[in-house]
Amino acid sequence: MDYSSKLLARAVDEIAQLPGIGKRSALRLALHLLKQPQAQTQHLTEALMALRSEINFCAKCHNLSDQPLCEICANPKRDATILCVVEDIRDVMAIESTSQFKGLYHVLGGIISPMEGVGPNDLTLDALVQRVKEEGVNEIIFALSATVEADTTNFYMYKLLGPLGVKISVIARGIPVGDELEYTDALTLGRSIQSRLPYEEVLRE
Amino acid sequence: MDYSSKLLARAVDEIAQLPGIGKRSALRLALHLLKQPQAQTQHLTEALMALRSEINFCAKCHNLSDQPLCEICANPKRDATILCVVEDIRDVMAIESTSQFKGLYHVLGGIISPMEGVGPNDLTLDALVQRVKEEGVNEIIFALSATVEADTTNFYMYKLLGPLGVKISVIARGIPVGDELEYTDALTLGRSIQSRLPYEEVLRE
Repeated sequence: MDYSSKLLARAVDEIAQLPGIGKRSALRLALHLLKQPQAQTQHLTEALMALRSEINFCAKCHNLSDQPLCEICANPKRDATILCVVEDIRDVMAIESTSQFKGLYHVLGGIISPMEGVGPNDLTLDALVQRVKEEGVNEIIFALSATVEADTTNFYMYKLLGPLGVKISVIARGIPVGDELEYTDALTLGRSIQSRLPYEEVLRE
Repeated sequence: MDYSSKLLARAVDEIAQLPGIGKRSALRLALHLLKQPQAQTQHLTEALMALRSEINFCAKCHNLSDQPLCEICANPKRDATILCVVEDIRDVMAIESTSQFKGLYHVLGGIISPMEGVGPNDLTLDALVQRVKEEGVNEIIFALSATVEADTTNFYMYKLLGPLGVKISVIARGIPVGDELEYTDALTLGRSIQSRLPYEEVLRE
């Protein structure tokens, strides 16, 4: 498209780099900002830069946090002997909303996906192994989505953690295969945590 | 939703103020930025602030421009005796892409819409009248969308400009009624400009 302004073209290009936003939507958003008071653009850009430059990852579970330790890890009422392994922070929020889990989390920061160039070293797997070794963990729940990539990641973690003698379970496949965990309703998700299975049983299927 | 970070909650709130972006999409965008290098967030925010604080509106046609006068108005090859009145810059881009129009534009900056609180005084109508009086304009083409609000705006402009003795035409309704101008394909849009009608004829229908 032929923009009459280089400033506009640059803003549209930058916005269109965000996932799920094409050039036309980007143009619409840019023109929307131009119609609003300058303060709105300023608040938006300040919030984004503050998020990107100031946010911490919890030193224990790698959840996003404004403190060195996130609220869940810092809560003495949570059961530190059971770890729930999830892909990212949205999954923590989804599981917390079910009120079915009182243990701690471990946020992988992704799942193994050769298609997208994500390998085991891009995830927080070393930190997970270390936690299991040092923090008296009795059980680990694999709570990833029901996708092929998640299955691969589960199997990789099982090979890694199995030798440590910790109980490994996987949330029940109440989640429709191919769906993303974060879009599952709280009832289904809560039930899938309650009816988790030993990983060996799942492997046998 | 219960965010583990106030920085994240603030960024999500700001992103979700953009039109067509809900809280869930905003969260997805925020987490995407966190996974990318900090430079990407910086480029995005700098481009948005530069756009909002540095951009000019062309002193003649009110198109967006980095210069006091936009490229179209500054081009001596364009026919200054014919003005095409459009709602916003996206419509200029859509009409330019048809290569069917060699005159100049006038960007209203909106259309009259009591529902959205947009009245005649919010548009660049005074400047339009002044241009017609001072710049030797022979013909004005109304090139708004085919909506009720656009009809209202056309009629308002007709009452305003009719007494000035200038020829007033309206682009042909090749545009499906109720559709937005910017989504019309270039062929249909080009034809609608060629087969424009005197506004009096349209009134008689």
